[in-house]
Amino acid sequence: MLTPQKKDFSQWYNDVVLQAGLADYSPVRGCMIIKPYGYAIWENIQKNMDAEIKKLGAQNVYFPLFIPEKFLKKEAEHVKGFAPQVAWVTHGGNKKLQERLAIRPTSETIMYDVFRDWIHSYRDLPLKINQWANIVRWEMRPRLFLRTLEFLWQEGHTAHATEKEADKMAMSVLKMYRDFVENYLGIYCVSGKKTEAEKFAGANYTLAIEALMKDGKALQMGTSHQLGQGFAKSFNIQFLDEKSKKNYVWQTSWGVSTRTIGGIVMAHGDDKGLVLPPRIAAYQVVIIPISTENNIKNYISKIEKNLAKKQIRFYTDWQNQTPGWKFHEWELKGTPLRIEIGPKEVKENKITFVMRDELKRQIVSLKQFKPEKLLDEIQKRLFEKSKKFTIENTRKAKSYDEFKKILHEKGGFVKTHWCGNEKCEEKIKADTKATIRCIVSEKSGKCIKCGKEGKFEVLFAKAY
Amino acid sequence: MLTPQKKDFSQWYNDVVLQAGLADYSPVRGCMIIKPYGYAIWENIQKNMDAEIKKLGAQNVYFPLFIPEKFLKKEAEHVKGFAPQVAWVTHGGNKKLQERLAIRPTSETIMYDVFRDWIHSYRDLPLKINQWANIVRWEMRPRLFLRTLEFLWQEGHTAHATEKEADKMAMSVLKMYRDFVENYLGIYCVSGKKTEAEKFAGANYTLAIEALMKDGKALQMGTSHQLGQGFAKSFNIQFLDEKSKKNYVWQTSWGVSTRTIGGIVMAHGDDKGLVLPPRIAAYQVVIIPISTENNIKNYISKIEKNLAKKQIRFYTDWQNQTPGWKFHEWELKGTPLRIEIGPKEVKENKITFVMRDELKRQIVSLKQFKPEKLLDEIQKRLFEKSKKFTIENTRKAKSYDEFKKILHEKGGFVKTHWCGNEKCEEKIKADTKATIRCIVSEKSGKCIKCGKEGKFEVLFAKAY
Repeated sequence: MLTPQKKDFSQWYNDVVLQAGLADYSPVRGCMIIKPYGYAIWENIQKNMDAEIKKLGAQNVYFPLFIPEKFLKKEAEHVKGFAPQVAWVTHGGNKKLQERLAIRPTSETIMYDVFRDWIHSYRDLPLKINQWANIVRWEMRPRLFLRTLEFLWQEGHTAHATEKEADKMAMSVLKMYRDFVENYLGIYCVSGKKTEAEKFAGANYTLAIEALMKDGKALQMGTSHQLGQGFAKSFNIQFLDEKSKKNYVWQTSWGVSTRTIGGIVMAHGDDKGLVLPPRIAAYQVVIIPISTENNIKNYISKIEKNLAKKQIRFYTDWQNQTPGWKFHEWELKGTPLRIEIGPKEVKENKITFVMRDELKRQIVSLKQFKPEKLLDEIQKRLFEKSKKFTIENTRKAKSYDEFKKILHEKGGFVKTHWCGNEKCEEKIKADTKATIRCIVSEKSGKCIKCGKEGKFEVLFAKAY
Repeated sequence: MLTPQKKDFSQWYNDVVLQAGLADYSPVRGCMIIKPYGYAIWENIQKNMDAEIKKLGAQNVYFPLFIPEKFLKKEAEHVKGFAPQVAWVTHGGNKKLQERLAIRPTSETIMYDVFRDWIHSYRDLPLKINQWANIVRWEMRPRLFLRTLEFLWQEGHTAHATEKEADKMAMSVLKMYRDFVENYLGIYCVSGKKTEAEKFAGANYTLAIEALMKDGKALQMGTSHQLGQGFAKSFNIQFLDEKSKKNYVWQTSWGVSTRTIGGIVMAHGDDKGLVLPPRIAAYQVVIIPISTENNIKNYISKIEKNLAKKQIRFYTDWQNQTPGWKFHEWELKGTPLRIEIGPKEVKENKITFVMRDELKRQIVSLKQFKPEKLLDEIQKRLFEKSKKFTIENTRKAKSYDEFKKILHEKGGFVKTHWCGNEKCEEKIKADTKATIRCIVSEKSGKCIKCGKEGKFEVLFAKAY
């Protein structure tokens, strides 16, 4: 039923998202329906990341969906970047509005207009807030999870007294995002600064984590922006410092969205379907009864109690279908650990299990069965595999011809030097469709395009 | 600083919501900003109610914010009820849309258009989903939490094979809502059916829980609608039953919103500010250091460890302010239990505490201090007080004159008979501003307005 990855990765992706029940197309062009199986993953991401966000000292809030047009226009770069993607509300309650309202494409402007009233003195700083919300950006070529007109995300916003503190905050968030994606989603990340061409509209600079998908294309998994004082000046957010001198605040904003679910699909999935990392899987364990005799039911109920006690998320599939059908179904759905219980297991007091990433059938005694350890193993293995894949698919190029050849034939990351000139960046994009995913270090070398000495070591890749 | 309740309850409400930091006005007319202290309450409501919703067998999903105009028009009653309140998106990505999109005022239509594809056979039933989302209804007279253009809620939607199952579902949800509001929010509820005039646009019938606020007005805290087969027919949602016969499904929908936070404020608050029920309070305990010597810090740190171990949400206020200022502040913020630690407490190994609802200072030995018990006591006391208040303010009237007099002078609920004629209902509303909050039973008696024999025993009240 699934298109093989090698044949058409993009079609494989759509097949697996739809068939595994993560999401569905909606009657509204470009919007998607996140189905229970997909939403459960988002709930697990939310719950765990929310705890990390709170550790960084941010408190959750909720700001309006609507942004008055004049607010969006206050920061020149920002409006240039977002205006083309905005959905506009022009009528409400049967009346034409005096000023049309943007549906938030991001919330800097609606939040910072209020920051002006919330911040007066250095005692009010740092101010750290976060919100879990829906966002609308009018995309021309929508793709389930990866690029939809509406998506869900968290957006953090902070204000600080000094540039140094804002730098530190942006970096702490980047580290939190990277740890989260690596430890929870099992996806290896590279990280660094974005170039001027790729940074957030209105930011001083943007930090990002990027991960390699199985087709060799990169996916941006999260961004953390140091906003400088640009918004503070546009919205007049000033504070009195300890010497009673007025200063503009330094700000950051940062976000991770439902797009990460697309990343999970493409970083771990195979021709049989999803492979979900245990820490965020909807169900960590699925139990398949081979038959439905009473002694099998009792045996399974004992296993269920044990799983519940260990707070393992599980599902027992009692549907009126063959075991073979169910194996196939739960492989498609990517449940990390499958338990099969038939008369033989009951008789011998054993458990047959299959780990989704390895698909080898194993038998152990009930006593020796440690599901929490197996789930940990899978979690680690997925990360190691993702790391190995990324390292193997990060290449160096000696010439521009080789650079183009790698991107054309193999994909992946190409680590190279860049002079810093936007024209070289543009030409490379035109030639190869690859963009600079991030600047990994400031290290001198010859620009792969123009040959001039440049100070940036960068990672190029084609990206989603 | 706070307007006394007796002087102007409505002004007291705005004062306390703003001064306690629950919410703020937003630059967008009629929308509000839910601030950290208010959002924490919503998070506690969400977390606990979500578990109850899952116990009813519903799974979380996310559907698009946008609803094509033609969908909204499919169910005649529904569109009549909601069209006047809709916000319309007419432009996206710099282009005029071919069909304008409504921002969801509720999600029946966008969901049920897909239910048609999800439901084929009786095996697909019951279908139970829920979403936590933002909703937009263009209100003419917005009030913080109670009536805002945008609010947050959960909306559950189910489809069943039979009318009986839909009835049962609607009733189970009502019971869950009532238990939740009583046990978590500490607010006593009355419940019953709405009249035809007051039911949800498109429902067969609506069940509701209603609670009495301290000014004697009622607040609807949650509704559960049995939708019959109206939407199923409009959206053609049919299933094959066990005899392979095609049938339309029977449906329910139900919701609780951020409005409940307004209910918490008005059901428990007093002239000193909020009084928060411990189970949903942002902080359950606040610790006020009377001074900042090291031995006080150490003593407090011991208390903090104990609270953390018991998973009690607490906050220690080390701000550079006087203890008196802090007592006032945390009384305004309604924290259930306040601990005061000064040299005396440290020396005698004691704890001074004040429960927000009673405001009596008590001293116990550290060993005898059982915060979890005190919090339980407060939770129960708030509910008992709310119950007593509701019962004391539920009156009977012998004549229409007495009925009007009670509503005019005392407010509260008036329990009376009603003939079932909408004209009597309308006239009573015109005379008194009171509406039928719910039908409590079908019991014969003379209509308070027209004197004719009627079968409905109802509760009238002025309402928010």
